[in-house]
Amino acid sequence: MTKKFIIAAAAMLIGICASAQQALWGGSQIKSPEINPDNSVTFRLRAPKAVKVQVTGDFLPTQKIETPFGTFDGPGFADLIEKDGVWEFTSAPLAPELYSYSFVVDGLMMRDPSNVYMIRDVASVTNVFIIGGGRADLYKVNDVPHGSVTRVWYESPSLKMNRRLTVYTPAGYEQNKSKKYPVFYLLHGAGGDEEAWIALGRTAQILDNLIAQGKAEPMIVVMTNGNAGEQAAPGESVEGFERIPGMQQRGMMDGAFEMSFPDVVKFVESNWRVYKDKKHRAIAGLSMGGYHSMHISKYYPDMFNYVGLFSAAIMPGKDAKSPVYQNIEEQLAAQFAKKPALYWIAIGNKDFLYQANNEYRALLDSKGYDYEYYETGEGHIWKNWRIYLTEFVPMLFK
Amino acid sequence: MTKKFIIAAAAMLIGICASAQQALWGGSQIKSPEINPDNSVTFRLRAPKAVKVQVTGDFLPTQKIETPFGTFDGPGFADLIEKDGVWEFTSAPLAPELYSYSFVVDGLMMRDPSNVYMIRDVASVTNVFIIGGGRADLYKVNDVPHGSVTRVWYESPSLKMNRRLTVYTPAGYEQNKSKKYPVFYLLHGAGGDEEAWIALGRTAQILDNLIAQGKAEPMIVVMTNGNAGEQAAPGESVEGFERIPGMQQRGMMDGAFEMSFPDVVKFVESNWRVYKDKKHRAIAGLSMGGYHSMHISKYYPDMFNYVGLFSAAIMPGKDAKSPVYQNIEEQLAAQFAKKPALYWIAIGNKDFLYQANNEYRALLDSKGYDYEYYETGEGHIWKNWRIYLTEFVPMLFK
Repeated sequence: MTKKFIIAAAAMLIGICASAQQALWGGSQIKSPEINPDNSVTFRLRAPKAVKVQVTGDFLPTQKIETPFGTFDGPGFADLIEKDGVWEFTSAPLAPELYSYSFVVDGLMMRDPSNVYMIRDVASVTNVFIIGGGRADLYKVNDVPHGSVTRVWYESPSLKMNRRLTVYTPAGYEQNKSKKYPVFYLLHGAGGDEEAWIALGRTAQILDNLIAQGKAEPMIVVMTNGNAGEQAAPGESVEGFERIPGMQQRGMMDGAFEMSFPDVVKFVESNWRVYKDKKHRAIAGLSMGGYHSMHISKYYPDMFNYVGLFSAAIMPGKDAKSPVYQNIEEQLAAQFAKKPALYWIAIGNKDFLYQANNEYRALLDSKGYDYEYYETGEGHIWKNWRIYLTEFVPMLFK
Repeated sequence: MTKKFIIAAAAMLIGICASAQQALWGGSQIKSPEINPDNSVTFRLRAPKAVKVQVTGDFLPTQKIETPFGTFDGPGFADLIEKDGVWEFTSAPLAPELYSYSFVVDGLMMRDPSNVYMIRDVASVTNVFIIGGGRADLYKVNDVPHGSVTRVWYESPSLKMNRRLTVYTPAGYEQNKSKKYPVFYLLHGAGGDEEAWIALGRTAQILDNLIAQGKAEPMIVVMTNGNAGEQAAPGESVEGFERIPGMQQRGMMDGAFEMSFPDVVKFVESNWRVYKDKKHRAIAGLSMGGYHSMHISKYYPDMFNYVGLFSAAIMPGKDAKSPVYQNIEEQLAAQFAKKPALYWIAIGNKDFLYQANNEYRALLDSKGYDYEYYETGEGHIWKNWRIYLTEFVPMLFK
């Protein structure tokens, strides 16, 4: 009965998906993307009626795109060629990396129907694939012990709000009931939320792999929602599936999130087996999360011994009145007088925040404050933030 | 600087998504789906070059689809009408429910680019929306205390494998450090995995809401992976994003999963604050998971006091040799002699397993075994399984 059951169940369940039906009832199955032995990738789409099919993504050479706000490097496009109703394109051999892509069919952007793997970044959902090897092997699920990932809600008295966060606990946390762990707070960028680092950031995979290789201390990683006016990621709050994600969240850079950060630390330290001192706390973030990390760590100079600014925004807007943003140089003086174990600045040399980071480093240099600097190529992209995470984590709590 | 920063970051980040760019740079924004005050829903797609655009989904009246294995009720299709490059269709007013849909553009099935909310069911990814009201309000995130959801790995000595499962802990679990909880094991169907109940099943929302309303006891819900030959859901194992999900998983109905179930119970009872007796354990599942629940609960008759079969497959295939499937009537006699607090069978009257369930109930009737029966309309669909979950959970641990 098993086989009959499966076929009948399949017929009932996947009635909605014509492409899956076709595969099941004997139509030829499309494989897309297919990673070839030389690490070129073949993309395929069955679209007999289409006139023009392209693929776009960060695996292609960039091209200039014009916007009202200037010219930027955008992802390139490549044409697929049709044969018997199936369109196909094979890329050049690709370097190890996690890549995103979409199809464009007669001008309409769409996901690859043969690939169920997608990741949302702000309001964009794209398909993803990984070319393994080198650093990108850290982004894969490997045959190593795996930590746990928990979505949990905490009460923030400062923000008068019940809020959601994501917590990674390393393999062994459940078994080693007397062991205490250090905590790394990891903050997302503008338009992001408590899902960003775990999805595109591959935090769980990177931590699993670095810990298994003995390169990182077992630690707890706490991924907050840095939009102080929001409870939770899109789809996870009372606004449900009707909320349209975007870059403009409520309460992003007005100081409220930074002020409220002790609520997060207190919640974590009351509910997980962790050390509760500065020596065992780190904070880092990308873009707006780097900005948050900078301002939180100086406003609460006794809280974090390790600070990471990944492609960080630096200075607040002129209308930002929060105490967090007052007397910035005095706050920095107090923070650096206490000699943090690591103050780490990383940025790509094509990032639109490159100049702002140069100016900030010049300020730190002029004061003789001790920090480390890590520069990569390219710009304000997840590729860089994954690299920074893999570089930063091994330096913590040692 | 905040606004400038956001615009520049947006330009860098969402270069890949033409529709989002258009919205950002001032093109008119498409809202889709839009739930109207009368609970009709308007679907929109900007596709100036398309010749024919349809929407398909379970919100439309079903239509007959022919397959080599018989004729089934499949979801209907509706035509969108074009004006100025934007295609549009408004449904009839819809009953409260979680609905799935896709667009079909010139024969090509695609997701709605204006809707980031999607759920994977086996190998199909579809957009989703919820019409609130009535029972469907249980499927929404409401302003109530929220439980935690954890993805965690456990060692299964029986299967010699590290395996993944999903655990819901109710609101208050972290705070009430001396309180113990009962445990409900909730099993997926063929083609599913440890993500199925939390995604399409809306388990976390249903439990949050029922507990907040005082209708269900606070309990822990454990959602296993019932494919004994698999470590984890697609994308979460060492096979990574190259695994193509399908109905045929390894080790689905050969008895291995049922045999190994004490590994799960032992792991849960060692790592969460739970009662460790039959009185405080429940098991239920849909389709193949109902089959697993039936066979686990009779093979280990001292383990579960509450059993739920949701649209369950019943009898094993002829080549299933596991001890789990031997002497079924004797096993049932032993189980029912111990008088489980609840043995609950639910099925839709159009389900392809309806007859098999009738036969099973006739067997139980002929022996005088005590069970409860709950029949709905329609067939082997998630709508029914969400209903069964909302009916079953309030009866547990009382």
